Amino acid sequence: MSNKKAVILLSGGLDSVTVLAIAKAQGFECHAMSFDYGQRHSSELQASINIAKASGVEHKIIPLNLRLIGGSALTDNIDVPDFDANSDEIPVTYVPARNTVFLSVALGWAEVLDADAIFIGVNAVDYSGYPDCRPEFIQAFEVLANLATKTGVEGKKLSIETPLIDLTKAQIIQKGLELGVDYSQTISCYQADDHGKACGVCDSCVLRKQGFEHAGVSDPTIYA
Amino acid sequence: MSNKKAVILLSGGLDSVTVLAIAKAQGFECHAMSFDYGQRHSSELQASINIAKASGVEHKIIPLNLRLIGGSALTDNIDVPDFDANSDEIPVTYVPARNTVFLSVALGWAEVLDADAIFIGVNAVDYSGYPDCRPEFIQAFEVLANLATKTGVEGKKLSIETPLIDLTKAQIIQKGLELGVDYSQTISCYQADDHGKACGVCDSCVLRKQGFEHAGVSDPTIYA
Repeated sequence: MSNKKAVILLSGGLDSVTVLAIAKAQGFECHAMSFDYGQRHSSELQASINIAKASGVEHKIIPLNLRLIGGSALTDNIDVPDFDANSDEIPVTYVPARNTVFLSVALGWAEVLDADAIFIGVNAVDYSGYPDCRPEFIQAFEVLANLATKTGVEGKKLSIETPLIDLTKAQIIQKGLELGVDYSQTISCYQADDHGKACGVCDSCVLRKQGFEHAGVSDPTIYA
Repeated sequence: MSNKKAVILLSGGLDSVTVLAIAKAQGFECHAMSFDYGQRHSSELQASINIAKASGVEHKIIPLNLRLIGGSALTDNIDVPDFDANSDEIPVTYVPARNTVFLSVALGWAEVLDADAIFIGVNAVDYSGYPDCRPEFIQAFEVLANLATKTGVEGKKLSIETPLIDLTKAQIIQKGLELGVDYSQTISCYQADDHGKACGVCDSCVLRKQGFEHAGVSDPTIYA
């Protein structure tokens, strides 16, 4: 029995669920954390609840209303755009400082748990171009984390683990299937309906759909 | 009229109120942010509301229940200890990752506002020894902030301003009085009662009391 502990940021999407499976396979005692941050739909959060339960891990949902800040199509009255492969701009679905905020709260819990790692499913290959998914951001957060906490000052090293960062979406799916992930339980769509049906046209849907195609496996997503 | 904008982390205590006055004096358009994080008493939050109103600045209060994480005398069922000048341990009033969390949410708002700075009243002289009040923590957060955001990627520099970091409590009070701060409105006590009366014996009370003594001015704090 291992004593290694990890906090897993679990959105209920394809990536974070794969990360949970990877952390478990690496022998970590996993503690999942999700945020009710005012996202457009609650089916993603419900997916995280179902997945944590099925995995038998502790799960905290933190209410933190980022709509109070706004500035994103996911938390404000801005339409979610269709996927545009030719755009190199950061899209309006970017939520200001979201990963910084999520990692910070996870850091607090990691300190209380005396955890060794925080896992986050960021990916710098098939992604929406968000600044807070890049390796240099993650490295800077790890430096910060070890200066920010009492455990850090006392010499305990916390690592920020990003096992998906260099994988294509297809490779993520293949990895998850090897570990027994049931992707029918996951929700990736930025604007899924109340029944968890995906729109099929937003960035996140298109990247996911292409991932299943390139992995050569059938896509269990239910589209509206 | 200046276009410089700043987010000010405003707890309602002596330090943050002085910081707000300094930022205003430096010509910043100030936007104050406070957190309803499950602190032991609400009189601190009420003080922040009164002060923001008196200063005529925009003020957002973000509900973020850090009791869901616990691990501190300020957010858990742990007694607040009396001041102990001989202790070099980080006290139980330390809230895991609190300043990291507060700065992260402030970063999100700073990005939406297109602000130039975030002001925080950390102090590394007369303080409780918290790791997230040290200059090296603040420097690491500034590096992170400029990697984390869309505005940062686009080349806009955000600075984390800590005008109190090298001042004694007495110097902070002298500075604030020069700028017209009314310290009778501020609450520093870790366990003030519902009427805002201070205990007089916790770390924060003792550091504040000594500050007024050393500054040679009368202490407007109402003690229980």
